[in-house]
Amino acid sequence: MFKPLVKRLLPHAHVSAHCDLPCGVYDPAQARIEAESVKAVCEKYQANEDPEFRTRAMLIKEQRSHLVKEHLWVLWTDYFKPPHFEAYPELHTLINEATKLAGAAGTKGAADPEVADKLLAKIDEIAKIFWETKK
Amino acid sequence: MFKPLVKRLLPHAHVSAHCDLPCGVYDPAQARIEAESVKAVCEKYQANEDPEFRTRAMLIKEQRSHLVKEHLWVLWTDYFKPPHFEAYPELHTLINEATKLAGAAGTKGAADPEVADKLLAKIDEIAKIFWETKK
Amino acid sequence: MFKPLVKRLLPHAHVSAHCDLPCGVYDPAQARIEAESVKAVCEKYQANEDPEFRTRAMLIKEQRSHLVKEHLWVLWTDYFKPPHFEAYPELHTLINEATKLAGAAGTKGAADPEVADKLLAKIDEIAKIFWETKK
Amino acid sequence: MFKPLVKRLLPHAHVSAHCDLPCGVYDPAQARIEAESVKAVCEKYQANEDPEFRTRAMLIKEQRSHLVKEHLWVLWTDYFKPPHFEAYPELHTLINEATKLAGAAGTKGAADPEVADKLLAKIDEIAKIFWETKK
Amino acid sequence: MFKPLVKRLLPHAHVSAHCDLPCGVYDPAQARIEAESVKAVCEKYQANEDPEFRTRAMLIKEQRSHLVKEHLWVLWTDYFKPPHFEAYPELHTLINEATKLAGAAGTKGAADPEVADKLLAKIDEIAKIFWETKK
Amino acid sequence: MFKPLVKRLLPHAHVSAHCDLPCGVYDPAQARIEAESVKAVCEKYQANEDPEFRTRAMLIKEQRSHLVKEHLWVLWTDYFKPPHFEAYPELHTLINEATKLAGAAGTKGAADPEVADKLLAKIDEIAKIFWETKK
Repeated sequence: MFKPLVKRLLPHAHVSAHCDLPCGVYDPAQARIEAESVKAVCEKYQANEDPEFRTRAMLIKEQRSHLVKEHLWVLWTDYFKPPHFEAYPELHTLINEATKLAGAAGTKGAADPEVADKLLAKIDEIAKIFWETKK
Repeated sequence: MFKPLVKRLLPHAHVSAHCDLPCGVYDPAQARIEAESVKAVCEKYQANEDPEFRTRAMLIKEQRSHLVKEHLWVLWTDYFKPPHFEAYPELHTLINEATKLAGAAGTKGAADPEVADKLLAKIDEIAKIFWETKK
Repeated sequence: MFKPLVKRLLPHAHVSAHCDLPCGVYDPAQARIEAESVKAVCEKYQANEDPEFRTRAMLIKEQRSHLVKEHLWVLWTDYFKPPHFEAYPELHTLINEATKLAGAAGTKGAADPEVADKLLAKIDEIAKIFWETKK
Repeated sequence: MFKPLVKRLLPHAHVSAHCDLPCGVYDPAQARIEAESVKAVCEKYQANEDPEFRTRAMLIKEQRSHLVKEHLWVLWTDYFKPPHFEAYPELHTLINEATKLAGAAGTKGAADPEVADKLLAKIDEIAKIFWETKK
Repeated sequence: MFKPLVKRLLPHAHVSAHCDLPCGVYDPAQARIEAESVKAVCEKYQANEDPEFRTRAMLIKEQRSHLVKEHLWVLWTDYFKPPHFEAYPELHTLINEATKLAGAAGTKGAADPEVADKLLAKIDEIAKIFWETKK
Repeated sequence: MFKPLVKRLLPHAHVSAHCDLPCGVYDPAQARIEAESVKAVCEKYQANEDPEFRTRAMLIKEQRSHLVKEHLWVLWTDYFKPPHFEAYPELHTLINEATKLAGAAGTKGAADPEVADKLLAKIDEIAKIFWETKK
């Protein structure tokens, strides 16, 4: 999955995509950056028992987890098309599970770096498919 | 599909759902109300050639269409669970199509009441399944 | 108050209203759904002493209470007109009290299902007037 | 003009108010600043026929008008209390009219500096009462 | 205290500025009002050990601190121009420090009225320069 | 500048940064992705004279340009520290110019791909410094 990301940085590479004009610029990196942030917040939460810090961490984790969901929803609705869902029959379930992992049953509900790791792994699976479809 | 909605208004009826605590309160009516608004905006757009009015209509239609997407995404990720997707194999596709109908290829891209009607019909199909699962 | 809500579901019924084109689609159900969510969050808060859960509950209750206020403000400013305020002299006070019940002196300030019930009762009073004016 | 700002910074000066803790800091200046912006946008709109500029102006005017509504709603619900409404029986109507003047029937619906002036005048009437109640 | 507000409303008074049309209406008072709110929240936090209240205070302080940052960023990018930065070589650093004082190293990270006072003092330094450039 | 981006994708690489806990995850790619979107929107705008499409393009360009500003402001305030500003004396000016290029005098004000290219070039200059400071 690293290769396509590297390729994206080369001239003429397809660089991400997200707005609903649509601009045609989509990139799973947007979801991944937020999920990396969620994981870092979980780690800092576990390492710091100050109640003020923990309240802030919970609040920020909630927001960043939600951004993960939004970026994934945009890929699901705006980037992926029927031929993609035919070529990758697991794609609906994969994205659905990833968004659930960023919700109450995942990183919103738990300040647990391992849950964040599961979310990151799912995002990487989606990114792998994404970059295959961009070839 | 009307019956479940009526039932929802009775004492102890299950009333909608949406936040990610989760509170357990979900309701496809939220998406439908925004889609009704989108349709009304399309109709008013077609009936009024004033450029200021039309700019405002486009802007509001964009926002309301996005709210439709968000409400449907919440149902897809937060309300529907694996057993639902097994019982209704068409559910992923149905919701995906509905969200696309509220996007650039649907009511965001066109100020067309007929497109809004297609969106409303899809939402009603989702609502029908939703209320069956609540029984 | 149930009847008008039922009526809304029939063909050609007036379905809600809210955007400021205006689209003409207004519905007190939007405020009620959020208030139902607030009540559910209060109940879950009282039943769960886990500090992480409680922080999340407070955060979500704050957001949902604010949505109640916003939906009611829209009815007060955008839907209700001078003849309504003349016909229902208590309407200003009623909506003002309802919005206060969703604020610091109400469901924002307290994780108390009984306060949420008072908010729901006020919304129902407003809905009753709303649907009378739609006849 | 620097002086009034400095004066407002003196100890015991009542400086604005708005969050729903509540922090106790309210100030009608927040609504006025946005309304001044709305008026300036209307004037620039009338003086510039470039369609791109006009689209941007409409969009910004919509947002800023909405901020006026929000700041006034906060005063109505969060700052003003029953004794204020008794002492100023016109207060409900006054604020309701002001918020309508920032909506579809006012500065949202028209790019007209005179409409913005009416909105500003209403805000000044509210501010006058506000500061009387702070004495 | 009514007087300064009235004076600010006089013809030719420079009243604030902020939107990116640009409307030309800017005012450091916007940042200051939010910072006053932050300080009041810090004081209320220190005076109240109720955990629900404190969670709400943390949440609101986070939001209001962020608004301070946004208002200052707008001044830095949209109002101040190269000649201002030449005339006031400390201006970049001053605004950078002020925004940091509203962030994790400042009022977001600490519920401390003294930190809020430092933020207010920085905003006043910026305001002083701002009003000099408006002469 | 490509090398650090590539490095970021390796195990244990520093991946982006942005929330204000702070989580410590920052990445200029966030600003770049939005700016790429802005450029694509400008190109589509120039290639399509349909007024509905153009209104939507203007609206989306406004939002995406604003996101560029926000991502850059976060780097300026939250990531860069005094030693960075000492080591790179041009950094304040560079970021200030980049944010201006995403505002009214840049991509907000003009639907011009060349202006978007200038913005992208500035972001790349900032990214170069950013990745040097991460070594």
